[in-house]
Amino acid sequence: MTSDECSRSLTTLRWVPDMVSGLVRDIRVRWALEEAGLPYRIETVDFGEKDLPAYRILQPFGQVPVYRDGDVTMFESGAIVHHIAMQSANLMPNDAQGRAHTLEWMFAALNSIEPVVVPLAEIDLFEPDAGWAQAQRPAVLTRLESKLADLDRVLAGRAYLISQFTGADILMATVLNILRHTTLVAQYPHLAAYHRRCLARPAAQKAAADQLAFFAAAAAPDPDPVH
Amino acid sequence: MTSDECSRSLTTLRWVPDMVSGLVRDIRVRWALEEAGLPYRIETVDFGEKDLPAYRILQPFGQVPVYRDGDVTMFESGAIVHHIAMQSANLMPNDAQGRAHTLEWMFAALNSIEPVVVPLAEIDLFEPDAGWAQAQRPAVLTRLESKLADLDRVLAGRAYLISQFTGADILMATVLNILRHTTLVAQYPHLAAYHRRCLARPAAQKAAADQLAFFAAAAAPDPDPVH
Repeated sequence: MTSDECSRSLTTLRWVPDMVSGLVRDIRVRWALEEAGLPYRIETVDFGEKDLPAYRILQPFGQVPVYRDGDVTMFESGAIVHHIAMQSANLMPNDAQGRAHTLEWMFAALNSIEPVVVPLAEIDLFEPDAGWAQAQRPAVLTRLESKLADLDRVLAGRAYLISQFTGADILMATVLNILRHTTLVAQYPHLAAYHRRCLARPAAQKAAADQLAFFAAAAAPDPDPVH
Repeated sequence: MTSDECSRSLTTLRWVPDMVSGLVRDIRVRWALEEAGLPYRIETVDFGEKDLPAYRILQPFGQVPVYRDGDVTMFESGAIVHHIAMQSANLMPNDAQGRAHTLEWMFAALNSIEPVVVPLAEIDLFEPDAGWAQAQRPAVLTRLESKLADLDRVLAGRAYLISQFTGADILMATVLNILRHTTLVAQYPHLAAYHRRCLARPAAQKAAADQLAFFAAAAAPDPDPVH
């Protein structure tokens, strides 16, 4: 699924710590490209390079991923997944109503769910001992549980967010991945089954394995440290 | 711009407190419809009704707005603005690259900027005296200022986020409105000029005036309280 000759490239970090490996947002793009069956190659940026003007022209916030498809260069994982989805019936229905609902759930994943997921992960992963974090955590958890319960009701009797698998499911499943350090998703049976169903897809498995292998290779010790 | 007969309806709250009047997300949809010159009518939902099953079918998180366009019912303000933008060259370029970049900035507004804006507003408007909030505020502010500086660089020498006004500017400008209780935006000259430019558009002014008038009318005392 990769080719040095192809017109699509995905830029990600050269290496990340284990704590966030598997969560870097390039996985959304890898997954979408695998579902769509589109070849791509990987390019990398170092932590230090992210803040250089040449990279900021491509990604104004100094983040990853950046995606190139021929002459089009894009940032924002949600927009990139949409761009790829518009090229594949595997990721987007062909009718206007189906497209509207796909985009609705893409925004829901990133604007209604992710903003209540990330604060819990930030507390638990980065500030577990801070006084403010422990004081705030119950309210953060309550707000998140309310949204997860809403999603659980939506997913009762549904395989995916709309009537077929779409790019919205890629975004929602990878948002839920951010809670992997908790047992929260497992407490909502429809949501948990949905999350498992998404992650079991061959394209999801390949994207996850590819991302892990990529960062593991970057972290491996120099095979010939003498030279 | 309203008609009881037309096929487009926007559902918002019947009334909100002054503190959030002007910030309710239906303003994004009002603004987009005014830019596109599309007639619509307003429907309302009460706070209590938001949690009823009949409303949750339309909006699974019990929020506003909900938008109907003929047979299509949608939630998520970002998706609704995109749906409207696809119907108007005033809000979306016609070429694939322009559309990709519009969507990129729509997601940037709601997934890269709003999530660092909202925490500051939540602290300042809802938890100004909480110990955790004051302990966390400096870090929240630093993160926000970094993103505002990034945006300021992007907007140097540009009138809008891409080469024409689009739905992305509606989302970005209304995200920046959430900071109206601060002088933060004014500290970034390109960003401040951009924000003023967006809000000065006749469609923005009409949308803001319409929303304020709508909530003011709902809050007005009964004109004939004896009967």
